[in-house]
Amino acid sequence: MADLPERLSRDALLALAIKVLQSSGLSREDAEEGAEILVLADLFGISTHGVDRLPSYTERMRTGGVDPRATVVIDHTARALLRVDGNNGLGPVVARKALKACLAAARDTGLAAAFVRGSNHFGPTISYTYLAAQQGFASIVASNATTTIAPTGGRAARLGNNPLGIGIPNPAGDPIILDMAMSVVARAKIRRAAARGENIPSTWATDKEGRPTESPEAALDGFLLPIGGYKGYGLALMVDLLTGLLSDAAYLTHVSSWVDSPDEPQNLGHFILCIDTKRLGSRAWLGAAMQDFVGILKDTPAADPAHPVLVPGENEMNAFKRNSEEGIAISSSLLEKLNELAR
Amino acid sequence: MADLPERLSRDALLALAIKVLQSSGLSREDAEEGAEILVLADLFGISTHGVDRLPSYTERMRTGGVDPRATVVIDHTARALLRVDGNNGLGPVVARKALKACLAAARDTGLAAAFVRGSNHFGPTISYTYLAAQQGFASIVASNATTTIAPTGGRAARLGNNPLGIGIPNPAGDPIILDMAMSVVARAKIRRAAARGENIPSTWATDKEGRPTESPEAALDGFLLPIGGYKGYGLALMVDLLTGLLSDAAYLTHVSSWVDSPDEPQNLGHFILCIDTKRLGSRAWLGAAMQDFVGILKDTPAADPAHPVLVPGENEMNAFKRNSEEGIAISSSLLEKLNELAR
Repeated sequence: MADLPERLSRDALLALAIKVLQSSGLSREDAEEGAEILVLADLFGISTHGVDRLPSYTERMRTGGVDPRATVVIDHTARALLRVDGNNGLGPVVARKALKACLAAARDTGLAAAFVRGSNHFGPTISYTYLAAQQGFASIVASNATTTIAPTGGRAARLGNNPLGIGIPNPAGDPIILDMAMSVVARAKIRRAAARGENIPSTWATDKEGRPTESPEAALDGFLLPIGGYKGYGLALMVDLLTGLLSDAAYLTHVSSWVDSPDEPQNLGHFILCIDTKRLGSRAWLGAAMQDFVGILKDTPAADPAHPVLVPGENEMNAFKRNSEEGIAISSSLLEKLNELAR
Repeated sequence: MADLPERLSRDALLALAIKVLQSSGLSREDAEEGAEILVLADLFGISTHGVDRLPSYTERMRTGGVDPRATVVIDHTARALLRVDGNNGLGPVVARKALKACLAAARDTGLAAAFVRGSNHFGPTISYTYLAAQQGFASIVASNATTTIAPTGGRAARLGNNPLGIGIPNPAGDPIILDMAMSVVARAKIRRAAARGENIPSTWATDKEGRPTESPEAALDGFLLPIGGYKGYGLALMVDLLTGLLSDAAYLTHVSSWVDSPDEPQNLGHFILCIDTKRLGSRAWLGAAMQDFVGILKDTPAADPAHPVLVPGENEMNAFKRNSEEGIAISSSLLEKLNELAR
């Protein structure tokens, strides 16, 4: 049977996601916060981090690996510094609450940061940097993750493919938003090459002995390589320090695998920094500068006219507009699964 | 005549650097601040960003491209947010003052940031992240730079090889410090390949049409490639936004070239974020966690035992200890030049 996609409006998908989360035991308020983050991912076209995650999130809550009733505790340790304990709550709920508290503190001091522990996979960083940008805040949002990357020169995984997001608001157009992890490619890309019987570039991964390989099978048994070798490794490490160690969360190999140990709290950490751009200058000034910035880039002569220069987040913002108008494509099998879980 | 290096103690090199800067017109206090940053670079073994820069800095001040008597103005626009105007002062002096003000504000609010405009090349980021770490502050320090990198898919330079530094203090050992720019390699590496008549990997640079090349000659006429293609490009862009645009400094192609237009102010921008780790937990907690972090990495089985896993900043911290004991190696030609300039 063909797995044809249906298109749901944002509101319809949001309502469905809220029902699924409530069925898992979340309060109405927490379900709304978590659903907002996931549906934003779908609007941005990042379907791997959207409602597609609900079945696995639900399963983790069912087995006790994530607590649907967790109380998120926020400690204002200093005027611009928050320590947040998610108490093993659902990642998007914990992080959404941390972002809200961080924005409130930043309105007071101009800039604030939240160090979050006791959390879980929180969706894509762009959901958070986008929400911050809509309120005029520049932000840096990062998390650590399951241990899958070997240090440069190593032949054992020690750190996660830690996502890093940076967003800059634009009163006169789309915000500019970067959402990236340090690996050269996502694991899914290597699986596709294996399925097609194709070799991969030797910059993508190593075998399990830590040696670069062109074999997708050896790569899937080995480790993803970070961008720029030791540079990407270094950057992923600093993200783990900011999000994990400084948050008093798990870091490096202390992060347990939610595949291997699904009922053990992962204790992931996040770092959220919010900067009130209204304290740096007027909206007119910022809008003009941002439009000028984008204009300079878009006017760059292209090496191949069929592939013009892009601005970070451009594809995602275009998907957002398209999906907002046409609805979000969900496969019928996923839709069926979600409707089941919503009961 | 052989250009043999001499070794100078830190104090002797510092005294010489201060004299050179004073001869260019800096006040005693400003000369001390600038010299501290440069000599730290030399201690860390980053000689390209240390006193080796004094002749070119001196020349720029002589032609009026940099103002040795600039007053650095600091505006506390919000309790945790500083806007700094370097008024075209010497980069290390402007940034050192901005760092000091940022640390003071962070002691009040737990975390603070300085957005700096009207500045110049400020040395390596590690000088600043190290100073912050010595006082128990984690930090992010970044700058924009002369326009040399083409956007992914473009065939004209639009952004700089913007340096990004992140430092985490360690009460029980060496801080962990990342200091990197987004290019895969530094230009100097390509020049060396050209000098040896060797080809280069196609991941290092493009020709002037924006096409990846293995010819070092074509590469020197073209553009350095960023790490991870569009990822490194995106990261360099976000650094330009944080350091240049949000600081109301120059950004992208508004940054003039100090080679092509030496008497025109570059109006570089910096971003300095300082986080008081003492507000996140005790020194005992942080020291234990950092030593554990380093231990996990250093214990990683190596793909090649001759090349063990390194921690960011490890090489620089080892150089620091060595150079502090043995003195800093300076070529006799550079020493002669500095003695000349000091008169």
